[in-house]
Order: sequence, then C-alpha cells, then structure tokens
Amino acid sequence: MMTVEHENLSVQGFRAAAVAAGIRKHGRLDLALIVCDTPAAAAGVFTTNRVQAAPVLLDMERIRSGRAQAIVINSGIANACTGEAGMRLARATTQLVADALDIPAELVQVASTGVIGEQLDIARFEQAMPGLAASLEPDGFPEVARAMMTTDTVPKTACRTVRLGNREVKLLGLAKGAGMIMPNMATMLSFVVTDAAISPPLLQEILQQAVARSFNAITIDGDTSTNDTLLILANGRAGNPELDGSDPETTELFRQTLEDLLRELALKIVADGEGATKLITIRVAGARSEEEARAAARTVANSNLVKTAFFGEDANWGRIIAALGRSGAEFSQDQVDIAFDDVTMVRAGVGQGRAVEAQATEVLKRRQFAVVIDLHAGSAAAEYYTCDFSIDYVKINADYRS
Amino acid sequence: MMTVEHENLSVQGFRAAAVAAGIRKHGRLDLALIVCDTPAAAAGVFTTNRVQAAPVLLDMERIRSGRAQAIVINSGIANACTGEAGMRLARATTQLVADALDIPAELVQVASTGVIGEQLDIARFEQAMPGLAASLEPDGFPEVARAMMTTDTVPKTACRTVRLGNREVKLLGLAKGAGMIMPNMATMLSFVVTDAAISPPLLQEILQQAVARSFNAITIDGDTSTNDTLLILANGRAGNPELDGSDPETTELFRQTLEDLLRELALKIVADGEGATKLITIRVAGARSEEEARAAARTVANSNLVKTAFFGEDANWGRIIAALGRSGAEFSQDQVDIAFDDVTMVRAGVGQGRAVEAQATEVLKRRQFAVVIDLHAGSAAAEYYTCDFSIDYVKINADYRS
Repeated sequence: MMTVEHENLSVQGFRAAAVAAGIRKHGRLDLALIVCDTPAAAAGVFTTNRVQAAPVLLDMERIRSGRAQAIVINSGIANACTGEAGMRLARATTQLVADALDIPAELVQVASTGVIGEQLDIARFEQAMPGLAASLEPDGFPEVARAMMTTDTVPKTACRTVRLGNREVKLLGLAKGAGMIMPNMATMLSFVVTDAAISPPLLQEILQQAVARSFNAITIDGDTSTNDTLLILANGRAGNPELDGSDPETTELFRQTLEDLLRELALKIVADGEGATKLITIRVAGARSEEEARAAARTVANSNLVKTAFFGEDANWGRIIAALGRSGAEFSQDQVDIAFDDVTMVRAGVGQGRAVEAQATEVLKRRQFAVVIDLHAGSAAAEYYTCDFSIDYVKINADYRS
Repeated sequence: MMTVEHENLSVQGFRAAAVAAGIRKHGRLDLALIVCDTPAAAAGVFTTNRVQAAPVLLDMERIRSGRAQAIVINSGIANACTGEAGMRLARATTQLVADALDIPAELVQVASTGVIGEQLDIARFEQAMPGLAASLEPDGFPEVARAMMTTDTVPKTACRTVRLGNREVKLLGLAKGAGMIMPNMATMLSFVVTDAAISPPLLQEILQQAVARSFNAITIDGDTSTNDTLLILANGRAGNPELDGSDPETTELFRQTLEDLLRELALKIVADGEGATKLITIRVAGARSEEEARAAARTVANSNLVKTAFFGEDANWGRIIAALGRSGAEFSQDQVDIAFDDVTMVRAGVGQGRAVEAQATEVLKRRQFAVVIDLHAGSAAAEYYTCDFSIDYVKINADYRS
C-alpha cells in the first residue's frame, strides 16, 4: 500500500475537526465534523440490515437531494434501537451543526457508531458544538479518523490523485471498522471528500459500483452493523469539466480511482479486524457464475473453523473444502484445486502430502497471503478479504461494553 | 433431562464393542462396531455438504435397500477428500466386518470422523477386526460412544422406552459432536438402535421428520461437516405389530419418542460444544413464516458477536437485534420484543433500561437459559439451540491437528 504523508490529508474547500465530548467515556476524541465551504454533490451507501440506526434513516432521506455540506460523526453510542427519541436526537444534532455553521440542516449528514440501544445525551453535543465548529481546519482529517474509532487500533485514511482532463483531482477517505463487519455494507463508517466536479446521480452510481469490490468484499465476523454508512462529498473545486456520464473514459478513470481508494480503506479495516494477526485474500476461480464464486469465497472467508486454523497457522485445507461444500456453489469435489499463495496443496480434491503441507505451513506464517481456489466448474471468479480468528477476538467481544 | 443408568444402555438383539486400533493416536478407543443378530430395518440421514466423505457416499448407496446389520465406526481420520483410494478403503473396511461376522458386506454401514484429507491405513482395521468382533457384548454401547469422540469432552448417550400396542419398545442412541456442527445435519455422527418392528420406508420418513426439530435445530459454529451421519437400525424384537403407517396414532407416538431421544442427544452435543460454557435456546415467535422464524433463530444462534457476548455474560441485546435484522426475516424494528428467560429487556424495539439490564445479566450467569424473541410480524415460531463462544473454542480449533 502507498504511504500517505500526513500533510497530504486535505482537499481544497473542506475542513474538519474533532473533540472529546464525553459521549460515553471521558477524555477521548468522540465527536467530529467534516464541512465543505459550499454545498457539495453527495452520495451515500448504507447498511442492508433491516434494523437501521436513527442516523442512517435520516441520512437516507436527506441524501436523495444529492447535496450535502457537512457530516457530523460520533463514536461511543450508535443511536440504534432508540425509537422516536433517537430520531429526534439525530435531527437535533444536525440542527446544532446547521446553527453553528449557518447552513440548512437538510445539508447536514450524521453518523454514529458504538453501543446499540443506549440514548445519546444532546447536552454533550450542545456543549461541544461551538468549540468543534471553531476548530475546523483543512488539516483536521486525521483527528476525525481517530474520533471515529471504537475497537479499531489504528486510524484509517487513504488518499488518491487522478488527472481528469487537464485538472488534478484529489480524493481523501477515512474509515473505521474492526468488528460487526460483513457485506453489505462492510464498513461501519467511511467518508470520502473530493474536489472533483461530478453530477450527483453519476456520483451515486459510481459509488455503488466501487463498493462492490471493496467494502462489500471484506468480512471479519459475518455480522452486519445497523449503522454502516459510506458518504462521499464532491465540491467541484478541481475545476474539471463536470462528470455527468457523457465522457465514459474519464468517468471510468474516476470510478477506478474511487474503487482503489475504497479498497485500500477496506483492506485496512480487515487488517485491523478485532484480534486479527493476518490479512487473507480468498480468491475463487472456475465457478459457474459470479454469484456462486462470491458465495464460495464468502463462505470460506466467514468460516470460524477456517479462520481459527489460520490463526493456528495450520494448513487445514479440509476445513476450506468443507466450507466450499456448504456454500451453495456447484462443483465436483474431485476437481477442486486449492493453493496457499503459490503452493498447491490440493489437486483434483486430493491432498498433496506432507512435504507440500510443510511448504504451505510456511506460507501461513506470513502476515498476508492468498488462498487460491479453482472449482473447475465454469469461468467466473471473485475475491474476498478476511482475517484470522484469534483468542483476542473473543476477549475483545466478551468485554466490549464493560 | 432424564438420568440414564449405565445398565440400561442395551437393546435386545444388538451387541457392540470398541477397541484402540491406533488409527491416528495410540492407546485411545478409535474403532467401534455395532451389530444386530439379524438383518434390521435401517434408515439414514446424511450431510447436505456437497463435499461428502467416502463412508457417506457408500452408506447413501447401501441404505436404499432399507436393511442393515452392522455399523463400523472410526475416529481420528474422516476419510473425506481421499478420492478413489478412500472409497476403496471404505468398501474394504466393510468387507473386513462382513468376513468377521459372516454377513454380506452390503449390510454393513461405515462412519468416520476426524481429520479431513488424510488416508486411513487398512492394516489398522485388519489387525483390530478379529479382537473387535470377538469382544461384541450387549452392554458394549458406552464404549462405542467413547470411541466416537474427537474434541468431545464426554460421551453422549440417551435411552427411551415407549409402549406400542401392548409391547414395550426401547430406543438407545449414541452421538458425537462438539465442532463443525450446523444443520443440516447438525451432528457429525449419531446411531440409534431399537427393537421396534417398523417398515423401512416408514422408518426413513419418521427419521427425517424427527431430525428437523433435533439435530437440524442446533448450531455450534455454523460449519457443516463432510461426514455427518445419522443411522437407525430397528430389529423388530419387541414384537409389536409392525409399524407401516396404517396406524397413525402409534406411528406418531414412536415418532415423538424418537424425536425426543434425538433432541436429548442434540442438546448434549450443544452443551459439549467446543469451549462451550452455556446451553442457550433461541426461541423466535411472531414471524411471518416458519422459514423466516428459523432463519431469524439460526442467524442469532450463529452470530459470533452474540455468542461472545453470552460468554462475557453481557446482556448486549443490540447484537441480537442486529443479527435479526440481517437474517432475512421481515419485521418492523419498532415492534420487536426480546427477553432473557422471563426478563423482558426490549419492548417494541427499545431497551428497558439499566435496572432490567441488571436482572437480565443475572439470567446470563445461568448455565442454561432462553432468548425469547417476538417479531410481531406473524404467527410462525421456531427454536434453535446454541452455545456461547469462548476463548477455548479458538484454542481448540487453532490447535486441533497438532
């Protein structure tokens, strides 16, 4: 992955800030604000969970306008399963931001992460808002990335630049994840700001496409949050001819750049999965359809038995083939090949013996490796990204609220 | 659950034995035999995994005759993903049994459990078979239950008697489980012997019905084995009028007794789940259909986040409602009720506060409790049985093969 210098984490026309508002615990950054100097084109993708947190419900309603100017984010409490009181609080929070910035509340998006079922206290937001608005700076994004963290151990940011026409366009992304991560959506929270000029409908379309092979191809524990939110704001300050779909080549270039950025963020989430010690790519080829390829890769990526074996650095391919067998993908068990990176452990459904297993075990000691599966049933392929499943995952999740 | 005296673990006309054959490790019981004095009515249910072990493939073929006289069982190596050599070995094993007992090989069923992908050594079976056949005894079943164990910590047996007509009929069941447990089938291996007189087609039909609310309603880790096998042999020695479906009342009585027996075995498997410290019933009511009720219960029962919270004795109902929300069941989030035993923590989608949470936390300290969910979307219900997810689960599964 590319190294991103701290000083690059800004995009013209955007400012950001974070404060410790004491939302659930004292003294840690837990309230953040991202603001555009002018109303920006906006698009969003949200959790597919039937149970949706108040901020998600509010954002989904407002994003239809295709415009937004600010995003307020809190960690600590998710404002999910909080009923009408939660909806009122989400609205009130955006009103506080609107008042502080002198913009319409309808242009304010809100995102929350943390414990489900507890009510936020609006007083914390009231007290913190003036200071938060006053501290907005172009280089405030790293602080926002920190304020979003829950069980994350590192803040997650990524940057890309791309030349559209004769203008340089910049994209800056933030993400938090770590647990309750599973498509669709795979991240709990992610925000992207860019100075590209693009029409809101095209931005929404491109965002959804870019999500498919990034956030929707990762899994940590198979659980889907009630709060998953990905928002993108594009303010047009780069001065490129506005992308509206009439120039397919430039549109594709921007889409690829966005996908690449989201993929970096997604992989950072997996690598920082709760208790994770390894980042693993599950690559399935030879499936009858892309749907079956995805089902096969996802089932392996989510299997507790496969993931605990990886934690134990045990090349237990039997668990992989057992997971493939229950994935719903059609294949013949006497045709499957399985490799760990370049070491083929299984050919035509049969293990290749102790010597090969010893080589495969060496691969499993790496921080990062790929499981390459060929079902030999067709020509479709898919990739998933996952992590191993460690003792610390259980420790983290047995203790999370205490 | 009823207490079963050791001396009751026999059924007239059946004998059993187990020996330490050194299949994978030395000095532990790993080869067992169940034999009926005469050919018995037989039925079986097998893994739905597309990848099926050699013994499963062989049994499925032979059980079509509706007759069987012996079951040979080994632990240590699963004989799965072993190609043609594995099939030859499974056949050869049944031939050894047939020769030792002087019965046709077609009447011998075979079951294996253990590591996937390693080849069994037929020499171990050849050496052990004479001693195994010679040690068959009516009271040999507890030893068989022990020989079947892999990561199980206790052998699992259950007994029932039921009066059919004016005859007392007995059923004796054995099971092993502990990991890679998930419908359908939920057990790795289970065997039932009974002296009931029943026609093979009815036995098969009743077995499948009884499995639905027993083995197919439990989960430990969401994984399905390649070797799951449930076999029942009925030798008719009780002398009841042969059940053939013409007497619905007696048939139902037998079906219920079998379901009850299988349920006891299934719950013993969950209670002995790898690393499990608690046995938890997930009861979903108010679903639109039984299918949605089962999907909702299963998704909660399989959620790592829910199960780690139970291990931590944390009444984190947010994780339960999040799991319900991704289960595919239709419901409105502001109508859901959730109780732990008799403590209702969530009413109409909203938490009932700290005092109730403290009571719920007390419930979670029990060895056994129920999560009672009402979706208020319809009238269908379903139950699943699961266990908590502990640090030991990861330890067991990271180390399993070493």
